[in-house]
Amino acid sequence: MSMQQENKFQAIISHAKEYGFVFPSSEIYDGLSAVYDYGPYGSELKKNIRDYWWKSMTQMHDNIVGIDAAIFMHPTTWKASGHVDNFSDPMIDNRDSQKRYRVDHLLEAHAEKLEAAGKKEEADAVLKKMDQLLAAEDYAGLKDLIAAEKIVCGISGTGNWTDIRQFNLMFSTQLGSVAEDADTIYLRPETAQGIFVNFLNVQKTARMKVPFGIAQTGKAFRNEIVARQFIFRMREFEQMEMQFFVRPGTQMEWYNYWKEARLKWHTSLGIPAEKYRYHDHVKLAHYADAALDIEYEFPFGFKEVEGIHSRTDFDLKSHQEYSKKKQQYFDNDVDPATGKPYGNYIPYVIETSIGLDRMFLLVMSHAYEEEVLTKEDGTQETRVVMHIPPQIAPNKLAILPLLKKDGLPEIARELMDECKPFFKCFYEEKDAIGRRYRRQDAIGTPFCVTIDHQTKEDQTVTIRYRDSMKQERVHISKVKEIVLGAIA
Amino acid sequence: MSMQQENKFQAIISHAKEYGFVFPSSEIYDGLSAVYDYGPYGSELKKNIRDYWWKSMTQMHDNIVGIDAAIFMHPTTWKASGHVDNFSDPMIDNRDSQKRYRVDHLLEAHAEKLEAAGKKEEADAVLKKMDQLLAAEDYAGLKDLIAAEKIVCGISGTGNWTDIRQFNLMFSTQLGSVAEDADTIYLRPETAQGIFVNFLNVQKTARMKVPFGIAQTGKAFRNEIVARQFIFRMREFEQMEMQFFVRPGTQMEWYNYWKEARLKWHTSLGIPAEKYRYHDHVKLAHYADAALDIEYEFPFGFKEVEGIHSRTDFDLKSHQEYSKKKQQYFDNDVDPATGKPYGNYIPYVIETSIGLDRMFLLVMSHAYEEEVLTKEDGTQETRVVMHIPPQIAPNKLAILPLLKKDGLPEIARELMDECKPFFKCFYEEKDAIGRRYRRQDAIGTPFCVTIDHQTKEDQTVTIRYRDSMKQERVHISKVKEIVLGAIA
Repeated sequence: MSMQQENKFQAIISHAKEYGFVFPSSEIYDGLSAVYDYGPYGSELKKNIRDYWWKSMTQMHDNIVGIDAAIFMHPTTWKASGHVDNFSDPMIDNRDSQKRYRVDHLLEAHAEKLEAAGKKEEADAVLKKMDQLLAAEDYAGLKDLIAAEKIVCGISGTGNWTDIRQFNLMFSTQLGSVAEDADTIYLRPETAQGIFVNFLNVQKTARMKVPFGIAQTGKAFRNEIVARQFIFRMREFEQMEMQFFVRPGTQMEWYNYWKEARLKWHTSLGIPAEKYRYHDHVKLAHYADAALDIEYEFPFGFKEVEGIHSRTDFDLKSHQEYSKKKQQYFDNDVDPATGKPYGNYIPYVIETSIGLDRMFLLVMSHAYEEEVLTKEDGTQETRVVMHIPPQIAPNKLAILPLLKKDGLPEIARELMDECKPFFKCFYEEKDAIGRRYRRQDAIGTPFCVTIDHQTKEDQTVTIRYRDSMKQERVHISKVKEIVLGAIA
Repeated sequence: MSMQQENKFQAIISHAKEYGFVFPSSEIYDGLSAVYDYGPYGSELKKNIRDYWWKSMTQMHDNIVGIDAAIFMHPTTWKASGHVDNFSDPMIDNRDSQKRYRVDHLLEAHAEKLEAAGKKEEADAVLKKMDQLLAAEDYAGLKDLIAAEKIVCGISGTGNWTDIRQFNLMFSTQLGSVAEDADTIYLRPETAQGIFVNFLNVQKTARMKVPFGIAQTGKAFRNEIVARQFIFRMREFEQMEMQFFVRPGTQMEWYNYWKEARLKWHTSLGIPAEKYRYHDHVKLAHYADAALDIEYEFPFGFKEVEGIHSRTDFDLKSHQEYSKKKQQYFDNDVDPATGKPYGNYIPYVIETSIGLDRMFLLVMSHAYEEEVLTKEDGTQETRVVMHIPPQIAPNKLAILPLLKKDGLPEIARELMDECKPFFKCFYEEKDAIGRRYRRQDAIGTPFCVTIDHQTKEDQTVTIRYRDSMKQERVHISKVKEIVLGAIA
């Protein structure tokens, strides 16, 4: 990434810490690698994004219902899903430093160095060769490539490498008390399987008819070797997934439907469409017959924020095989081709899968601005403002009595009492008003209202808009509806 | 519990399964012990309870802010909190069956048997002795008691016991990729520590002044040996905790404040106060100077649903010691006794800690009724109705066109479009209307609206109230506000 982009990214990370959005986990113990805690404003923003997604799925679609499956699942789930056997990365150790690397990351970093040195063709050749070898699972070939490129360990500086081995990314733990019969279980590496194993329970109890969806939000865990880029890739993260069950043969129609519907969801927040792009997967996962990423232009480049996957009947079929329990749906709609009901089948699945933490970082990246303002005397100053979409902003309204006397706090408190059952308000009565405005800008509060002496005379207040900094006087009785109108 | 209570409890569990509230986890693989998944209506009810709590804490109090800390924390956290050394139960193994028991559960079960056999005094004597020995951590004495009472293993039938040992209830896993330097970390056994380690980060970034609170909801994990009573005690569960930081010496005042405030929260849902009682802890935990449970009368008796704990400065002080980082707050309010600011201190903490799953079971227990109705012809029938408080009901409104023709579905769809951005609606156009009403009763939908031919003439609909089954005609334009009024 360019220096400017790198600076912006670092500024966002600092801002997130300084203004209570995101803290390193257990910071007083010097943190835990690739794990983060959401602070006062971060936890509200994260919840608001999650609620915005949940509402768009389960409340706005009467053919989508939710579930909330446990993180712990029966271990056979992960045999059936393929995670026990296949959810691993090829890794290589440096014998001198004892440091372990993901092979693809090692080669990518090398290619980046080549490119930075102006050797773009060589870099592309390395990456192309790597892709071929990874696809062929040719680990000896990959080791040869690392040797041929003379790649050394960043710590030991040597090329003294072990053979390449697979490393499973699932966290395991022991359930039960008796060591002899304790079960090894896994922390789920994705939420999707909680939906698949409950497919028939949900379909029957909620009387759903294909096509229908099941939505879920929740934590997932991956023992990433190289967790990077702040909250972009973490070991503990949250997913928002929806599996849409369709009649076999109609999957491409629904794939295209969700491809468009999901991008619309993003832009409905007011985030510009040109910051997004689709990226079709060339190499498909073993369960997919089509897949794409919705990518966003983060400060560190276009990266995946959401995936749309046509997963075929792979998962349900596999669970049917492992559980010996039929995972079929009876479709009594009439097939025009035969004049008879479609009958029993295992539905196909379109999945929309978005990372909540990535979406959070996306919103922060979109929102953060260091705006240069020219003051009346011609000098310049910078304000840091977070243009967080009002629907998901942590605080919707700051209520600020100009002075901490003359009955102004009492009027402000009355307005608090009127508004706070409807949306999150913030109250502050100390400091110069300009400084208070700037603090609200920094946490992304779309509206500030100031109560001053004129309020006592004519019941008007000054409402200030975060993005334009425009101020106007409105009757105090209008405040609630102005805010409600902007966050609906 | 009595037969009638036992029957009610079993009926609730069956109902929860049949109507999509709670499923055994990974049921197609025959379930995972003491782990449950929330289905379509359960996930909505659970979310609504969580949101109701979160709003009451963070939105309605401007001196309480939220956080969302990770499940993974630095392992030293659990040394400082005492969980590594003390969060364990004394266990005993039967050598013949290889089965492990919690010592207190073994003795309690024995006492229950004695009592059932009419030997109440003997039972009480066993329990009293057990409490003394547990308090003294006298494991040899406990083993002698088990032998003296001739307690045998339910599986082997023998009294061939091992010595008693401590068993830690935390789940552990390995973080990182290189086996040699992987860290053993724990799944948090409580959410509270995520608040304590972030105390200064939150206080500083959100500029909080004592007294103030930090609220959090999230998963916690305990490797319970005997997980019991459906979702009442699970190995994976969700907590809703708030730590309120106060000036030392004022803790009893705040303890009493939160004791009352929390009970008010429960009754604000319309759940009768007489179903609740306070239970003061006689034996206090090592960190507490006062503690009580708010108990609810479940079908299986009065049990803890929420705890109010005066935790002193134990946690912050311990984190200060282990992290070597000051956990102090500077209080610049003036102490009237000295005329000077109170200055630096480690705040005291009042904790309110409620189990979300327990609260869910409480709501189900409160809501479930098998109501005997006398029909016009004098015969009786039973309807199962869930009196879920409207504020937290999964669906707020069912919209039911009487027939699937004559333009009635179109009118119903228009009403759906009007209402669904505001609250969760359910649409159904098939089956006899009586049957549709009963299904909505069974999932606790407070309002049904039927669209019939008269609607086309005068724009009125029939609104039916779940609890009273009363029906009345209202103008279709009034429906949204009737529902909104009931759920505010």
